Amino acid sequence: MGLITLLTDFGTADSYVAELKAVLLSAASDAVLVDVTHSVTPGDIRAAAYLLGRVWHRFPAGTVHVAIVDPGVGTDRAALALEAHGHYFVGPDNGLFTFVLRDTEVQIVSLLTPDGSSATFHGRDVFAPAAAALAAGAALVSLGEPFADMPSRLVYAEPHYEGKSLVGQVVYVDRFGTLVTNLTPELVPPYAVIEVEGLQIGALTRTFGDVPTGGLLAYLGSGGQIELAVRDGSAARRLGMGVGGRVRARLG
Amino acid sequence: MGLITLLTDFGTADSYVAELKAVLLSAASDAVLVDVTHSVTPGDIRAAAYLLGRVWHRFPAGTVHVAIVDPGVGTDRAALALEAHGHYFVGPDNGLFTFVLRDTEVQIVSLLTPDGSSATFHGRDVFAPAAAALAAGAALVSLGEPFADMPSRLVYAEPHYEGKSLVGQVVYVDRFGTLVTNLTPELVPPYAVIEVEGLQIGALTRTFGDVPTGGLLAYLGSGGQIELAVRDGSAARRLGMGVGGRVRARLG
Amino acid sequence: MGLITLLTDFGTADSYVAELKAVLLSAASDAVLVDVTHSVTPGDIRAAAYLLGRVWHRFPAGTVHVAIVDPGVGTDRAALALEAHGHYFVGPDNGLFTFVLRDTEVQIVSLLTPDGSSATFHGRDVFAPAAAALAAGAALVSLGEPFADMPSRLVYAEPHYEGKSLVGQVVYVDRFGTLVTNLTPELVPPYAVIEVEGLQIGALTRTFGDVPTGGLLAYLGSGGQIELAVRDGSAARRLGMGVGGRVRARLG
Repeated sequence: MGLITLLTDFGTADSYVAELKAVLLSAASDAVLVDVTHSVTPGDIRAAAYLLGRVWHRFPAGTVHVAIVDPGVGTDRAALALEAHGHYFVGPDNGLFTFVLRDTEVQIVSLLTPDGSSATFHGRDVFAPAAAALAAGAALVSLGEPFADMPSRLVYAEPHYEGKSLVGQVVYVDRFGTLVTNLTPELVPPYAVIEVEGLQIGALTRTFGDVPTGGLLAYLGSGGQIELAVRDGSAARRLGMGVGGRVRARLG
Repeated sequence: MGLITLLTDFGTADSYVAELKAVLLSAASDAVLVDVTHSVTPGDIRAAAYLLGRVWHRFPAGTVHVAIVDPGVGTDRAALALEAHGHYFVGPDNGLFTFVLRDTEVQIVSLLTPDGSSATFHGRDVFAPAAAALAAGAALVSLGEPFADMPSRLVYAEPHYEGKSLVGQVVYVDRFGTLVTNLTPELVPPYAVIEVEGLQIGALTRTFGDVPTGGLLAYLGSGGQIELAVRDGSAARRLGMGVGGRVRARLG
Repeated sequence: MGLITLLTDFGTADSYVAELKAVLLSAASDAVLVDVTHSVTPGDIRAAAYLLGRVWHRFPAGTVHVAIVDPGVGTDRAALALEAHGHYFVGPDNGLFTFVLRDTEVQIVSLLTPDGSSATFHGRDVFAPAAAALAAGAALVSLGEPFADMPSRLVYAEPHYEGKSLVGQVVYVDRFGTLVTNLTPELVPPYAVIEVEGLQIGALTRTFGDVPTGGLLAYLGSGGQIELAVRDGSAARRLGMGVGGRVRARLG
């Protein structure tokens, strides 16, 4: 089927995404392209890794995922194509694939930079040709040299115990101002009380309608992590919190 | 052909739209997806209903239209799939389909929530599977229980007469700052003089070029309603008006 | 294959792009649509012409490029469809095609306005039907009258010499705050020193990694022109410069 997803920090106001799509469709004319997002804050590898980790596994096996947030473009950071979980991934070696590389065998090649490539736009000149080749059925090993190193992985602070509390943090803020944490239901029992900076939110609820309009709630989010939200409002604004903010689950 | 349109308030910065598309393309791999918009202000059902009402009928018969602005997600508001005018529509029962339900027979089913669905993301777990099934040729009645209630409809103030004037209001503001009103040419004869808050705009003109740069004009808009605009500028900013603002057609 | 690209100033918050796509897919159901951008600043023909000039030639021959930034909609400005370099282009005659018309033979027709067309939305009612017809295989000459005039072209200040310096200007600013100039490597030898308003940037470097974080650099950009950027930052903000800003290459 030739499905290719695209996740970049290119924005949609310039021609960069279209230049990439032109390369893809020139070499793989039957490919179906799906934008994940192009609105990652420039250079925010962590946000991109989180988004890719949420979405790749919902696409059919064989999908090619192109992820390009690449502040090191043109330096000696490697350009990778890899196969994991029956999906393909293409992008720079800077941690973008952290959540893809968990719990799996992986086959990785290092892509060469074709002659004449721009030193500042490997998305178009290095990654898109590789992705198009994969979508058109090329073998991964045909695209470059075997990559002998360990691919880069981002390091995250794990939730830790402080007395009878488990303390995690906000890992992502979405457009609604919802705060996604690194706390999961495996770690947080139903009787836990969720708090931020001394403000008690309460036990986990099921959905927004369980609190009045403007109410603050904690619940199991659609990505499998505990989230904080304000019904018909923004928890980020209400709490003045962003990525890295501390969230406590009081267990006793 | 399997055409599916998408209209949400999810934004395009997060992974939500892509998660929805992943479900659609996993179940209906030949479907063609068209984004109407994902930039509806969070929770603005009225704006979404207006946009859906403008656009659905321009697509071919058989198109599946997914509309998800769903502040009541996870509550007991019904999840609907319906057929009207030879098109299919999928989304929550909160008024989104107000303009679709006019002047037509309609067949409606209430969708069940599959086990394991997120209580906060029915777009991905309830509506997308139903839309994919319709695009792949499933019968509407196979998707849920017949919906016996009346679907929700938004209530709008209709234009009313004040002496020799017809008074309507702004129902939508677009990215150019154009003010779309609920006044239509059936109600407003060519000799009418359009006014806002004592400021006389004048008779309807045909297009922007009929006034000088920076000039304010009223004209029959491309959606069939009377609009106010500023040539090469923003009527919303010039007039300080938004949705609900009063617009008067002086008839005598 | 029926590839159609779309470049407008419609934004993505309203229904306008989807209305255009509905017309395209109704008449050319197999067409593949690619958004170049819809975020051109309203009425900014220069930015649109630059973006179109960067991207069209990367698509396969036969692609239909729809470009609509059309402040003169509904006036007597011509509506064009043209063939150049084996590609098709559709849009208003206001300079959008300036960079397409260089160095080539061109065949141009003037499109008629179908009865019932909106006077303010020729994108949907005039240009989209023409583009769909071309994508579906119609001959250019079948779409309108031969256009006997010269199509409009934007006039740009060319780089000029001031003593031993070549002085160009910024022609585009991208989402990263990168300043794209009209200086090209044919004009600027490797030993040149790039300056803006007395601030010396230095010789051309290859990529962002050649300067420290926060460093200002000049380099050959991916579109073939010299660009100024700040590594992990914004040159536009750092320098307080935008389109029209002067950039000097000191040659001696």
